[in-house]
Amino acid sequence: MIKIGIIGATGYAGGELVRILAGHREAEIVWYGSRSYIDQKYHQVYRNMFEIVEDVCRDDNLAELAKQVDVIFTATPQGFLAGLLTEEILKDVKIVDLSADYRIKDVEVYEKWYGIEHKSPQFIQEAVYGLCEINRNQITNQTRLVANPGCYTTCSILTAYPLVKEGLIDVDTLIVDAKSGTSGAGRGAKVPNLFCEVNENIKAYGVASHRHTPEIEEQLGYAGNCRVTINFTPHLVPMNRGILVTEYASLKRKSDGTLPSYEEIREVYDNYYKQEKFIRVLERDCCPETKWVEGSNYVDVGFVIDDRTGRIIMMGALDNLVKGAAGQAVQNMNLLFGLKESEGLELVPCFP
Amino acid sequence: MIKIGIIGATGYAGGELVRILAGHREAEIVWYGSRSYIDQKYHQVYRNMFEIVEDVCRDDNLAELAKQVDVIFTATPQGFLAGLLTEEILKDVKIVDLSADYRIKDVEVYEKWYGIEHKSPQFIQEAVYGLCEINRNQITNQTRLVANPGCYTTCSILTAYPLVKEGLIDVDTLIVDAKSGTSGAGRGAKVPNLFCEVNENIKAYGVASHRHTPEIEEQLGYAGNCRVTINFTPHLVPMNRGILVTEYASLKRKSDGTLPSYEEIREVYDNYYKQEKFIRVLERDCCPETKWVEGSNYVDVGFVIDDRTGRIIMMGALDNLVKGAAGQAVQNMNLLFGLKESEGLELVPCFP
Amino acid sequence: MIKIGIIGATGYAGGELVRILAGHREAEIVWYGSRSYIDQKYHQVYRNMFEIVEDVCRDDNLAELAKQVDVIFTATPQGFLAGLLTEEILKDVKIVDLSADYRIKDVEVYEKWYGIEHKSPQFIQEAVYGLCEINRNQITNQTRLVANPGCYTTCSILTAYPLVKEGLIDVDTLIVDAKSGTSGAGRGAKVPNLFCEVNENIKAYGVASHRHTPEIEEQLGYAGNCRVTINFTPHLVPMNRGILVTEYASLKRKSDGTLPSYEEIREVYDNYYKQEKFIRVLERDCCPETKWVEGSNYVDVGFVIDDRTGRIIMMGALDNLVKGAAGQAVQNMNLLFGLKESEGLELVPCFP
Amino acid sequence: MIKIGIIGATGYAGGELVRILAGHREAEIVWYGSRSYIDQKYHQVYRNMFEIVEDVCRDDNLAELAKQVDVIFTATPQGFLAGLLTEEILKDVKIVDLSADYRIKDVEVYEKWYGIEHKSPQFIQEAVYGLCEINRNQITNQTRLVANPGCYTTCSILTAYPLVKEGLIDVDTLIVDAKSGTSGAGRGAKVPNLFCEVNENIKAYGVASHRHTPEIEEQLGYAGNCRVTINFTPHLVPMNRGILVTEYASLKRKSDGTLPSYEEIREVYDNYYKQEKFIRVLERDCCPETKWVEGSNYVDVGFVIDDRTGRIIMMGALDNLVKGAAGQAVQNMNLLFGLKESEGLELVPCFP
Repeated sequence: MIKIGIIGATGYAGGELVRILAGHREAEIVWYGSRSYIDQKYHQVYRNMFEIVEDVCRDDNLAELAKQVDVIFTATPQGFLAGLLTEEILKDVKIVDLSADYRIKDVEVYEKWYGIEHKSPQFIQEAVYGLCEINRNQITNQTRLVANPGCYTTCSILTAYPLVKEGLIDVDTLIVDAKSGTSGAGRGAKVPNLFCEVNENIKAYGVASHRHTPEIEEQLGYAGNCRVTINFTPHLVPMNRGILVTEYASLKRKSDGTLPSYEEIREVYDNYYKQEKFIRVLERDCCPETKWVEGSNYVDVGFVIDDRTGRIIMMGALDNLVKGAAGQAVQNMNLLFGLKESEGLELVPCFP
Repeated sequence: MIKIGIIGATGYAGGELVRILAGHREAEIVWYGSRSYIDQKYHQVYRNMFEIVEDVCRDDNLAELAKQVDVIFTATPQGFLAGLLTEEILKDVKIVDLSADYRIKDVEVYEKWYGIEHKSPQFIQEAVYGLCEINRNQITNQTRLVANPGCYTTCSILTAYPLVKEGLIDVDTLIVDAKSGTSGAGRGAKVPNLFCEVNENIKAYGVASHRHTPEIEEQLGYAGNCRVTINFTPHLVPMNRGILVTEYASLKRKSDGTLPSYEEIREVYDNYYKQEKFIRVLERDCCPETKWVEGSNYVDVGFVIDDRTGRIIMMGALDNLVKGAAGQAVQNMNLLFGLKESEGLELVPCFP
Repeated sequence: MIKIGIIGATGYAGGELVRILAGHREAEIVWYGSRSYIDQKYHQVYRNMFEIVEDVCRDDNLAELAKQVDVIFTATPQGFLAGLLTEEILKDVKIVDLSADYRIKDVEVYEKWYGIEHKSPQFIQEAVYGLCEINRNQITNQTRLVANPGCYTTCSILTAYPLVKEGLIDVDTLIVDAKSGTSGAGRGAKVPNLFCEVNENIKAYGVASHRHTPEIEEQLGYAGNCRVTINFTPHLVPMNRGILVTEYASLKRKSDGTLPSYEEIREVYDNYYKQEKFIRVLERDCCPETKWVEGSNYVDVGFVIDDRTGRIIMMGALDNLVKGAAGQAVQNMNLLFGLKESEGLELVPCFP
Repeated sequence: MIKIGIIGATGYAGGELVRILAGHREAEIVWYGSRSYIDQKYHQVYRNMFEIVEDVCRDDNLAELAKQVDVIFTATPQGFLAGLLTEEILKDVKIVDLSADYRIKDVEVYEKWYGIEHKSPQFIQEAVYGLCEINRNQITNQTRLVANPGCYTTCSILTAYPLVKEGLIDVDTLIVDAKSGTSGAGRGAKVPNLFCEVNENIKAYGVASHRHTPEIEEQLGYAGNCRVTINFTPHLVPMNRGILVTEYASLKRKSDGTLPSYEEIREVYDNYYKQEKFIRVLERDCCPETKWVEGSNYVDVGFVIDDRTGRIIMMGALDNLVKGAAGQAVQNMNLLFGLKESEGLELVPCFP
């Protein structure tokens, strides 16, 4: 059994790791790190785990933990891991970091958007950006550090990736309008996340300034082999889970001046995703809905071509806590240890 | 007292007319038309009106009704009013039509997007498009027929109008990503509108094909004095009321190659809306939220300029049943009869 | 114009006072007290009031405020007013206290259930329990201090009052199972009130220990002229507003051994409530629903007699922020100043 | 592999059977019966199953189906199975009926509460009431027909069972106040189940007349070996899943006149449920919440003793579609075929 430690086990992403790993047949959690609840039983924090997890929460001593486990998941605030990571730790243990610390290769971009100094930039190049379907080959038992992608980014990138990669859209026109459930805001006690403030309401936030923007841009830039600058606008939706992205871009016209057909675009999506268990390209005219992927590791993708404007509207949906966080982290762990990639992730979406 | 008849009084927009008009000091409803509930007490259909409205629901005989009242609100399906309207009726009564029948001046566009034949196109030119803040001067006691704008359209147009009118944005780049509460789908018993299907879910629908698209395009075309073709994508949000639009467009650069500043754009908005009671241009960095206008006739507008992409992100929020339907209809009625424009509409938004 | 000061203007009940009083024709708020937001514009805290209220929030200096206004509403934590109130203040101003400080006549009961010492018990006897429909005659321009009832209590008492008063039920069997929206929990930033914790969930809390229990018991005891001890169980419901109570009690049998009929019970309710504007006794077989009273000052009451068990099931619904807090406070103010009791309170419930 | 046929596979309970059975290692669905969607792909009705289930929906020919499968789940309206069941069918196949047709042993009670004639009363005695934790021993490979309990009933009975069985409460005082999510109302297109009607609302319904009442009474009557007549009041809560029951009963005093202690009651619960995987008796002072069992087969139970009134408040929570329907049906199937009782049911509750 692979031994797992979690730092930040009592946030929403940490809780989802615990839920998913309860069904994993080749790994077990041996350290539930939670500075806020040290010595409390984990099931007293998350009562869904009553009679399932008997462990108590423990401090978040990274160096000590590294000696006791095979892999550490850090579901921690930005800057936490960067402030503690050392070569010694990485010699002892593999790390899947759910924070943004090692996602962005350009440390200046990181420091600008996150407003903090990066304390261990020497590990940035080594870290693999853990978007499994794209970087699968780089995530092996030689890999020590995986930067698990953000929730918005996973959804935004996978929805547009094949068309950017194949150069079918004009990336300068790309706009990502994203909508997220409230668990993405975390479990911190803040007035804007109170039930009465979120319920019966929708708003944009972080307009032209959200931190997932450069992450999307960097990854799509690698795909398109070009500089990508986009508008990304997240919205807060009164639901617990789920991210939906609606992406707009101008299709490049073919040499005869016509737009690509539905079938031509479809073929491109199928080439990239047909074999991917966790990406479902929906049938024609089906729009993704967050409810249909809830609780699962799926990303549902669909698209519509608008002949009137020459644009394609691409849509993607996922569960922000699963494929957008804990599920993808487990998928990365499976790759790191050479396990079946879907082990523990055969979660059927729950409806209604 | 102005005598009012409502056709379609038991739909959600009809119900909202009844709620609002209960507080109107110069008008009273004398005919609650509802084919589905003939002879039932209105308060048995909408129990909020118990001990407030004692009338029974009546048939929807338009010609007879026209003789008994001063103004008729038709909150009816598309094609209903167009199929019944005659010169005789318009001689007897003013009509504020909450359906789409007379909103679009080009009958071919109407017939194409709505998929039905227009049965009385002879009244289209006469009908005034009742977006009060823009067409106020055309809505007078000489006006017989007002086409009350759609919910999405009211929000979409007002949010962008000053910049289109002043030629500050490139209208070819305009994209409207809209989000609506579920009351916009009406009170019909359909599986997709069941609680369990809508709750904990978000989806796009009518992508590149929603009927409010040509209405927005036509009106913004008048404003910009040019042909406007946009992408409009509505989404269904798990809340009862509210529409939020997020609009993207490239700002035209000034002669020196720079983008307009916040202050310059702000001044334009203020020029158009500072005197408008029902349009509130929010303070800098404030994003509209549907909750802050709920139950009221306000439209809240805000914007952010993104120097990185050269785009402006404009946002607008309103209550789809008030400013997006019944409230604006009452506002139009007030204009038609020379009343104070805000009579009955001094509704303070309800929070939380 | 009556001059009003509010202490605690930025809690949910305070915000509702501001919303309601915006429509009051004979009173105006001149002091928005909020220790947390001193010198901030009120509309920056509650953006629904943008362009409606221009005042800034001020400190909560009770003695100074007393000299400047005619009436003070205290929407403050338990113990706040009791710790500050003096004879001098009461000579200057009338006070409507929305906290529990002067609701319970037996100071020992207060101190036991609230776990704090009462700092000014000398005013408890003077304070009138402001359940307007029951104590209307005691609330006059001679009254200096009104204890505004709690939200659960208003609903629980009014639902059972006529039957307790007339001795028709066995009060020893009375059980109140109550359900409340989340605004009742206040605007404090606490994890249990986060959207993701409340949404898609229902739970009981304060079982056999909730502080509204002795308040209900005391008032029903006055009505029945007997000692009343009940079970009261509140539940948290994933909605913003609204309280529903479901009350169970054994009906006393008549001398012939039969139960009272529907008509007999109905007549009793009508005798008490037919003339009451804000209490609506629903038609037979209609169960109250919180949605039908939302945003209004109504209490809807209904009942069903179960011949099988000999019990009556009484149900009541109100908006916890209106009739359960701010609306009733304004109703009390109207009585205190001899105004029309419903002034500012002609709020039509908002549906959907 | 056990071959399964489902009649009513496209209702919410049917959909949940499909979700759960997708993870069952010893059974497979071979017949997705749905009269409304014949020849449509199942995943076009429930898009969560896209790329998971490829089958099409088929007619509901019970006799033919009986020859092809080992067990049939009927998730059908009341009266459906009773109208079709024959001895020949029962010779071919085992049936787990999720409707009420065979739950109530007294056919007169059934016909009175359900208002329909029972067409095959000859099978009522044979049918085993499939409340697994109580009737486990009667559900064997000899059993042909299992009446799967109702959602409210499962929760109501299990919450009170040990105390009724041990004679610790006065059953004449038992009151069950129940709250349910909206999936319990089914997927039929009805106005009262529309999002806008349910959201932001709570109401009681079926007061003193709900059909689960006699089912609870009969089963608790067997437990207590006495006639049981209760009040049962269901409420509709704005959430998708979950039932919470709050039950009130007078505790019998001990011979010394005192009430049983917490520890004494606790011991009784533990005696009955400690070994039960799917019943979790919560720690002292913990109240069950529906969210903590969502998506799982658990029932969470808790209780509080009120010394003031001498009553015990018992609370129970389950997921109405799992332990309240499909999960328990699978549990019954596992018992019928001698499989591990929890096979396919090791579902970890999903939070948030």
